[in-house]
Amino acid sequence: MPVNLTPPKSKDLLPVKGVALGTAAANIKKPNRRDLLVMALDKGTQVAGVFTNNRFCAAPVVVAREHLISHNPVRALLVNTGNANAGTGKRGLLDARRTCKVLAKLLACNATQVLPFSTGVIMEALPVERISAGLPICVTDLREDNWLTAARAIMTTDTVPKAVSRRITLNGAAVTITGIAKGSGMIRPDMATMLAFVATDARINQALLEQMTRHATQRSFNCITVDGDTSTNDAFMLIATGRCAMPEVRSGTSAAYRGLRDAITEVAVALAQMIVRDGEGATKFIRIQVEQGRSFAECRRIAYAIAQSPLVKTAFFACDPNLGRILAAIGYAGVRDLDIEALHVYLDDVLVAERGGVSPRYREVDARRVMAQAEITVRVVLRRGTYGAAVWTCDLSYDYVKINAGYRT
Amino acid sequence: MPVNLTPPKSKDLLPVKGVALGTAAANIKKPNRRDLLVMALDKGTQVAGVFTNNRFCAAPVVVAREHLISHNPVRALLVNTGNANAGTGKRGLLDARRTCKVLAKLLACNATQVLPFSTGVIMEALPVERISAGLPICVTDLREDNWLTAARAIMTTDTVPKAVSRRITLNGAAVTITGIAKGSGMIRPDMATMLAFVATDARINQALLEQMTRHATQRSFNCITVDGDTSTNDAFMLIATGRCAMPEVRSGTSAAYRGLRDAITEVAVALAQMIVRDGEGATKFIRIQVEQGRSFAECRRIAYAIAQSPLVKTAFFACDPNLGRILAAIGYAGVRDLDIEALHVYLDDVLVAERGGVSPRYREVDARRVMAQAEITVRVVLRRGTYGAAVWTCDLSYDYVKINAGYRT
Repeated sequence: MPVNLTPPKSKDLLPVKGVALGTAAANIKKPNRRDLLVMALDKGTQVAGVFTNNRFCAAPVVVAREHLISHNPVRALLVNTGNANAGTGKRGLLDARRTCKVLAKLLACNATQVLPFSTGVIMEALPVERISAGLPICVTDLREDNWLTAARAIMTTDTVPKAVSRRITLNGAAVTITGIAKGSGMIRPDMATMLAFVATDARINQALLEQMTRHATQRSFNCITVDGDTSTNDAFMLIATGRCAMPEVRSGTSAAYRGLRDAITEVAVALAQMIVRDGEGATKFIRIQVEQGRSFAECRRIAYAIAQSPLVKTAFFACDPNLGRILAAIGYAGVRDLDIEALHVYLDDVLVAERGGVSPRYREVDARRVMAQAEITVRVVLRRGTYGAAVWTCDLSYDYVKINAGYRT
Repeated sequence: MPVNLTPPKSKDLLPVKGVALGTAAANIKKPNRRDLLVMALDKGTQVAGVFTNNRFCAAPVVVAREHLISHNPVRALLVNTGNANAGTGKRGLLDARRTCKVLAKLLACNATQVLPFSTGVIMEALPVERISAGLPICVTDLREDNWLTAARAIMTTDTVPKAVSRRITLNGAAVTITGIAKGSGMIRPDMATMLAFVATDARINQALLEQMTRHATQRSFNCITVDGDTSTNDAFMLIATGRCAMPEVRSGTSAAYRGLRDAITEVAVALAQMIVRDGEGATKFIRIQVEQGRSFAECRRIAYAIAQSPLVKTAFFACDPNLGRILAAIGYAGVRDLDIEALHVYLDDVLVAERGGVSPRYREVDARRVMAQAEITVRVVLRRGTYGAAVWTCDLSYDYVKINAGYRT
């Protein structure tokens, strides 16, 4: 049950010059659904990416990282759903490389110019033959206006395809940015979340593109959690084709850099929030804002403690202002010298706690009104510094258990 | 639905000379249930305790800690359920002190000789008048064989009272140990879990009693988790009345010390496991054992990552050997230099993963057999050192959400 999230319309997704997308139904896990995606990139395209920090990172993550740092220009991204090719040992690496080779042959490039991505069940062997059979169909299907079909093809437990576009003007030129993402469970990205791809036709040099990727990640995918489980397959790729009529962005302090960076970040934030809105079993979208802390790290710690507490999450599901659970989570977040007498806790505009206890102005009827909303902001004001951090999350419902108790079957 | 946990029988709970227990129905949250407990201690009794590390620790925890370090001999423990007196600011402290004063008057001792404990809803004011009215009834009811009634009086969402006794022989003297505990949700003790009281008639000096408390805590209450939420009210108290016919234990290297320490630890482990078996919504009892690590800390990190993963817990609920989720949790536990190629993962006796992927010997039918059991051991062998750690947990079911979505109503 996604929270304030409607499927994107194809006409709202702007093609990005230099990026063509093609899909196929390869029967990877279920029959008759498009589960294979190829994104073909024009010559001269720059790609930057961040990957999961999970030590059990999937075979495609290892191979994609390897190919990316080989500095051969990337010509294609190969994405499958239904199988994560994670926890598959040496065979998984061979399988990922084999699929790259098959696609490289079809596109007349080198295997190291293909980046592989997988999502789905962990610890099962990748069906290489079925993927190889699907790749020629993807290549035949390649078109610049296939973004919505692509967003659908990478879904797993997602109920809504996730895609967004922005058009900005940089130095007089129209620049397009379009991105897609998937993700609903096993969401607590450490670097970025599985399968977010954002493309732009802007011209920018590689070092700045990488800097921009880190900037956007830190403010988007690294601010979300559904269940605290960091996936083995997380990856966020930023693609710049350079096909729009603008001079290359070369300085990290230029207005063009900042304009592009902010638009890219905006797209990444929109995609990240879509993942939370479609979080497994979600009925509510919750912003946790921690303000006036001594460091970014302590604000983030507290925000994540609240966002990941099963007790807080079930209270939101029940629309129950059981606010002691929020205080308890703040208390165990691990900020040892925290003065609980000083901090303030708000639910939207309602002051809930001050001086270590319930605010004298607090009336439960006000909190009940906020808790009944589909979107809620929890604001914790630490009153001891100037740093802040935000985390976006959803509630914990029966359906989360239902979805994950029956996922493989 | 408790897992392999039957209510204790009154006859199996051995009185401890020097400890008398009395209960009353004080209408704290619900009418007509015993929700107030007094444990009166004979002169000469030693008490040691550990408390929650939650920064938002409850008022009774602050007061009990204060009274304990004042070194006035403890003469009574005052315990109420139905209200945690946490997140109640300055008023909460005054309220806790007022109840101590009322009880002290009834027992003709000083208020600082009373330790208060509370459990229940957070952020609501303690009903001091109702508690004060109940205390004389508790005092009239004081008896040495009231352990089962006491165990019942401290329950919240517990479905089974938790109590256990052991009798050992030290230097020819019979020593009795009896303990009670409560806890079912908000369970991830950082020092110890809310309301575990263990009493013995052994004679031991205060320094060794404190050392023994830390030893037992580290191996029992600090090894459990239900939902990863560290309570505001956790406390584990070890009481030694010195009323049995034995010389005082004075040396930490003596056989008597080790014998008593091991028996106390055994009682604490039994109580801690009872809490997990009665974890909110639990249908399975799961042991996570991490072995051959480089440090205790890294083993514990990995064990807790597995034990707290909502995805792992729902897979156990579904009896689904979705073992990739265990690998994912190991991978994101934060042990940066972990070699995933080296480690082995077992489900009971079934080797599941080796060399970074599924073991060639693995057959899903074997894992399905283990997953269908009510008790399961996950064993992770890191093969890089000599340290180990164990954590006990339960699964995540519909009922956990149900219980916590409706707790206050």
